[in-house]
Amino acid sequence: MGTNIPVVKAILQANEAVAAENRAAFDAAGLLVVNLLSAPGAGKTSLILTTLERLPDALRVGVIEGDIASTLDAERIATRQIPVVQINTGGACHLDAPMIRSALAHLPLAALDLLFIENVGNLICPAEFDLGAHLNVVIASVPEGHDKPYKYPGMFQKADAIVLNKADLLELLDFDLAAFRHGLEILRPDPRLFIVSCRTGQGIDAWVRWLMEQRNARFPSANAT
Amino acid sequence: MGTNIPVVKAILQANEAVAAENRAAFDAAGLLVVNLLSAPGAGKTSLILTTLERLPDALRVGVIEGDIASTLDAERIATRQIPVVQINTGGACHLDAPMIRSALAHLPLAALDLLFIENVGNLICPAEFDLGAHLNVVIASVPEGHDKPYKYPGMFQKADAIVLNKADLLELLDFDLAAFRHGLEILRPDPRLFIVSCRTGQGIDAWVRWLMEQRNARFPSANAT
Repeated sequence: MGTNIPVVKAILQANEAVAAENRAAFDAAGLLVVNLLSAPGAGKTSLILTTLERLPDALRVGVIEGDIASTLDAERIATRQIPVVQINTGGACHLDAPMIRSALAHLPLAALDLLFIENVGNLICPAEFDLGAHLNVVIASVPEGHDKPYKYPGMFQKADAIVLNKADLLELLDFDLAAFRHGLEILRPDPRLFIVSCRTGQGIDAWVRWLMEQRNARFPSANAT
Repeated sequence: MGTNIPVVKAILQANEAVAAENRAAFDAAGLLVVNLLSAPGAGKTSLILTTLERLPDALRVGVIEGDIASTLDAERIATRQIPVVQINTGGACHLDAPMIRSALAHLPLAALDLLFIENVGNLICPAEFDLGAHLNVVIASVPEGHDKPYKYPGMFQKADAIVLNKADLLELLDFDLAAFRHGLEILRPDPRLFIVSCRTGQGIDAWVRWLMEQRNARFPSANAT
């Protein structure tokens, strides 16, 4: 099967080139782009919805939804009256940079300040594909268990921040927070961890504050806040 | 990228051939093999451990553990003093039939009645790869939400049975069981659904009974029970 390796490399290189183009387009528009990654059901859509409630009113947000099938998540987002594009991968286990490029044609980039990309629910494959986003944020959730950084190191290693969602279940379930944190620290020093509950709102303010800091650091002349 | 398609097909065909060899080896040994598939953290290892407690004492069980990295799950299984082999895929997002064939060299097939294969935690890619198992069982869990069959149809469509785990959280979380069931019924008529909790033991007996029925139907001369 050795002959397959160059093909995979060629795909990844093509992806990198398009990702760089996407990033250049985002930078030109003064638009912070955040790639949200997680296992199925960790709460990517819920985090977007909860974050929308706490962001400054003036901030203009758009969303790209990635799913194998269905428009369920895009429909939830659309109720907030913000621009949303659904990508159905038709079976593919991750988003890639060309898919994002196609979606951008349907978004008013210059009229946005922040773009969330919700990747396909998968803790493995999406880590390999740069989309051109400025930040990769991995969402873990308490019911999944504290062993996830040990078992899915590739994904957690590439995370600029980790959001641990469903923290309202921490006292109810056998989740060892110290072990989880240790698993992250093995992969990268000083990981940025936010412990939140989209249900109760716990921890969301710190996450939103960090997000705004990231935006202001990258686009200091922007004045949306 | 059209040139990539034949390569992928060639890999899948090679996989099918090895899967058929695996299945023939399992049949010759009178061994029922169950491929357990789920998102990360749904409870594959917990289901194996809980099932072990309820199976007839005479039944000889083995386990193959699939993970990208770590031996955490194999260590949990090994405490039960049964044969266990860990496959570390080194990044690959699924098990395939050749990996299983390699693992079989380390298991006493003729001295086993039931073999669980715990696939890599991923609701997408493993659905494409026949391992030679007799049954594919998908484990969903209540905290993941009731929309999973709609969003990951490939996986649920191929399931011979679906185990909905963490049912002790049903009353606590917003999980619409009717919507979940409807999502399964869209994919295949009369889906076999077991609603269980590995924490409380709820529903495990019905699942174990079905498993034994499956074994007895396939290997009627076997007399382990």
